[in-house]
Amino acid sequence: MSKKTLKIIPLGGLGEVGKNMTAYEYGDNILVVDSGIMFPENDMLGIDYIIPDFDYLVKRKDIIRGIVITHGHEDHTGAIRHVLEEIDAPIYATPLTRGLLEVKLSKGGLLSKADLRTVQAGDTVQIGPFKVEFFHVCHSIPDSVGLGITTPVGLIVHTADYKFDPTPVDGWPTDFAKLAEFSSRGVLALLADSTNADKAGWTPSERVIGPAFDKAFSEAPSRILVASFASLISRMQQVADTAARYGRKMAFAGMSMTENAKMAAKLGYLKIPDGVQVSLDQALQMNPKKVVLMCTGSQGEPTSILGRLSAGTNRRFGIKENDTIILSSHTIPGNEETIYRTINSLFRRGANVLYDPLVPVHVSGHASQDEMRLMIHLVKPKFFIPIHGELRHLKQHAIIAKESGIPQENIAVIENGQIIEFEADSMRLGERIPGGYVFVDGARVGDVGPSVVREREELARDGFVLVSLNLDNNGRLRDDPEIITRGFVYKHEAQELIEATSQHIIETIDNLDGDIHNSMVKAVRSFLYKETKRRPMVFVTLNWS
Amino acid sequence: MSKKTLKIIPLGGLGEVGKNMTAYEYGDNILVVDSGIMFPENDMLGIDYIIPDFDYLVKRKDIIRGIVITHGHEDHTGAIRHVLEEIDAPIYATPLTRGLLEVKLSKGGLLSKADLRTVQAGDTVQIGPFKVEFFHVCHSIPDSVGLGITTPVGLIVHTADYKFDPTPVDGWPTDFAKLAEFSSRGVLALLADSTNADKAGWTPSERVIGPAFDKAFSEAPSRILVASFASLISRMQQVADTAARYGRKMAFAGMSMTENAKMAAKLGYLKIPDGVQVSLDQALQMNPKKVVLMCTGSQGEPTSILGRLSAGTNRRFGIKENDTIILSSHTIPGNEETIYRTINSLFRRGANVLYDPLVPVHVSGHASQDEMRLMIHLVKPKFFIPIHGELRHLKQHAIIAKESGIPQENIAVIENGQIIEFEADSMRLGERIPGGYVFVDGARVGDVGPSVVREREELARDGFVLVSLNLDNNGRLRDDPEIITRGFVYKHEAQELIEATSQHIIETIDNLDGDIHNSMVKAVRSFLYKETKRRPMVFVTLNWS
Repeated sequence: MSKKTLKIIPLGGLGEVGKNMTAYEYGDNILVVDSGIMFPENDMLGIDYIIPDFDYLVKRKDIIRGIVITHGHEDHTGAIRHVLEEIDAPIYATPLTRGLLEVKLSKGGLLSKADLRTVQAGDTVQIGPFKVEFFHVCHSIPDSVGLGITTPVGLIVHTADYKFDPTPVDGWPTDFAKLAEFSSRGVLALLADSTNADKAGWTPSERVIGPAFDKAFSEAPSRILVASFASLISRMQQVADTAARYGRKMAFAGMSMTENAKMAAKLGYLKIPDGVQVSLDQALQMNPKKVVLMCTGSQGEPTSILGRLSAGTNRRFGIKENDTIILSSHTIPGNEETIYRTINSLFRRGANVLYDPLVPVHVSGHASQDEMRLMIHLVKPKFFIPIHGELRHLKQHAIIAKESGIPQENIAVIENGQIIEFEADSMRLGERIPGGYVFVDGARVGDVGPSVVREREELARDGFVLVSLNLDNNGRLRDDPEIITRGFVYKHEAQELIEATSQHIIETIDNLDGDIHNSMVKAVRSFLYKETKRRPMVFVTLNWS
Repeated sequence: MSKKTLKIIPLGGLGEVGKNMTAYEYGDNILVVDSGIMFPENDMLGIDYIIPDFDYLVKRKDIIRGIVITHGHEDHTGAIRHVLEEIDAPIYATPLTRGLLEVKLSKGGLLSKADLRTVQAGDTVQIGPFKVEFFHVCHSIPDSVGLGITTPVGLIVHTADYKFDPTPVDGWPTDFAKLAEFSSRGVLALLADSTNADKAGWTPSERVIGPAFDKAFSEAPSRILVASFASLISRMQQVADTAARYGRKMAFAGMSMTENAKMAAKLGYLKIPDGVQVSLDQALQMNPKKVVLMCTGSQGEPTSILGRLSAGTNRRFGIKENDTIILSSHTIPGNEETIYRTINSLFRRGANVLYDPLVPVHVSGHASQDEMRLMIHLVKPKFFIPIHGELRHLKQHAIIAKESGIPQENIAVIENGQIIEFEADSMRLGERIPGGYVFVDGARVGDVGPSVVREREELARDGFVLVSLNLDNNGRLRDDPEIITRGFVYKHEAQELIEATSQHIIETIDNLDGDIHNSMVKAVRSFLYKETKRRPMVFVTLNWS
């Protein structure tokens, strides 16, 4: 491979391509973009979260010149702790993103180790051979940036998560002028957010939520609770402004939201009108008609405040009749059931719940199809690589790019681990690295792999049966078999089945050939399948004496 | 309680209210409406399906005068086998619904036991004291009916699943005239489908799918596969008609779809143009440009044909480059992840996949808000009970009813198990029966309850650890501990942890007080938690000699 090759390496296995982590490599230099986590799918049993396998980077840790974080969401920042344990490189982020990283790193005691460097949208920073220009993009968190990366082979535009909100709540639109300027310089390749590639048209402005909030506030007969993500600073701003208009005081509940709000206010990204904010304790003492609370739990997480409120297990306060609850955030795919169950429970407790699609209390932070077309027309890249999406989104984004004038052969739909190589005027597929993702479960990283998850699946399907046999020297049973089951049958209903199994063991044990352990496992397994059409894991322990 | 009371009893626990089974009771007479199943939620681990707890009916089996099935979908028919094992009563159904019941019952060998009676939309049948008028409704399966039930206390209208499709594919609209006629007689109560109570406007006609199919057929470069539900007869008709227009032959793949198509054709509900249908074997031999296959698997079920195609494990044929796959059915909530994973895998195999919301290849079979208003205005009931929905849908439907002129105090939002009592001019809440639902797992019904599912959850979260100790008479270890784990850690990565656990056992065993078994379980549990921050189930077996 020539030294004049730029490699782009999307890391992270089956997740969204290039979402959580992407590396740019030229000669002996690597620039890392983002360090985020994935949320486990419903069948990744017991897993807390997932990080990209960045072994490729660890092996090349000495040539990593910097890590750029595009914005403060978990899927772009959440793995930073794991990265810092292995890699020592400066981290570049805008003030709010840096603030959120600091909150995160201080919890793990890693803050002192991190070399954090603040950049502003509009800044240019030379990182090794990469000249990185940070440009502002609208997204569902303030201070998000995309990157113009001038490399020795040409200019790459990496949008990160973006939308073209024409009327953003913070008054700060995506930097059209910079995008147009890039195109005037000539763009080798565009890597663009594909999340909403199956949504026609244009994503509504964050501002359209305003009227829905106004209506909710004007009609609410009592207390209002707004549930959202802890990082959704712009939503905090909207709630504060609406509270001021309707003469309500506002309080944050829950540590992560309170901390983020405090930090965002300190940095000037959240401007709560004077006298509007009160402490949670104060709010709980006030006339409920004069109060709005903001809390986490919009995904129905059982340990979040909203989750505990729906279950009636929140310590400091509970749902009251006529509370109005606004779920103001999108549904992370896979969470639908949990969210709807939470909503039903809140209704059962006497609250009125406003949620999408009932009321437009949330909009997406990602560009829809027409914005994708606009991005391509603005940037006019020679090559196009759809990123930030599942394969189905990338395929759709590729169709959009082709319709927007990019020749088919200049579009690369790739998955994580597939390296793309650029020279001054050409793009080709490179090596495919093993990569993948790594499960984080409890305190440990990587000792739960797909095979352990498959065992959990098997246990979850039909449970297990443990048979303990005391044998004399002649292989005869000294006592009745001891049988323990978990997750297999309900004991009281299945006493008969357990006794029948015990009887079957007593009857078969003398006729078993060969390896008595294996034969007994097989005999129990097939007996239980015949009786129940289920296949629990079966273990037999033999105690000789 | 007076003999002049009509009781309405929605059965089935936390599922959609009155969806799977509702009973009407007057004096010594019960009429049952529908006998369906629920699909397990993602955290109901290992459960095949769920049936309503109909113990209330079993206890009163001698007064059950009849069972009416409103249409042929699983959530209205799927429990019929379990009901027939306990209850002997005639079953009333329209021809197609009866045909689907026959296919189902003949598999279980129960067909000869069932007293099936055919009714037509427009028929009136006296069932005990209930005069039941069957009226046609549009839904996503032909031959669906709603019920006008004239009881001794008044006329009840039970819509079952419905929509007001103005241009249905089979040319048979919902029976507006009958609904208006009911209202001219005076309707005591309306029980109406709430599924889409959070959708504004009017559900599109089944016919709008036509143009999307036309576009897909005209653009498909090679073979077409349409995946849908086995019972979606109208979709089969649309595919057959489109195939004829574009000169393609059509074949069904998979037993349930093939059987249903055959039965529907025999009864005249499916009219495949002459010469269009071929066998699957013939289709697989033909020019792929001249073929469309229909199969099941639109929910991504791993054992369905589409699921196997996506995994590359279908025996008779596989996905070919440039196949066009149309997913033409709605997403059952909770299946999102599985469906999207299937779509991604199909793209990975070179197919082009068309699915909602990318292309309008499916419409809902349920009324939206404006149709709900129309239903209420047509029927003009005195009392209103929203059914067929989760609590959040019922609450919304209640708001719609109130806006449509039903006084708040005449609207009852109830959950399954809550009996409603009517007299000639009044409605009140009656007894709340225990009810609930029953899990079906493998061949057995009811021996897997919530406690077993909680054990499966626990096993799924962190797996288990089994420690087997051989002790001498003094309680000293004769050998090293034997440790088996499943679903806990990956053996090769965790050898060290297992050895440390073993060492910890050896070091602690001599210092354990009291019950050595319990103390050892506690010691292992806390050691593993300290090391991993996980809580696997821990079992210890002690073998004395």
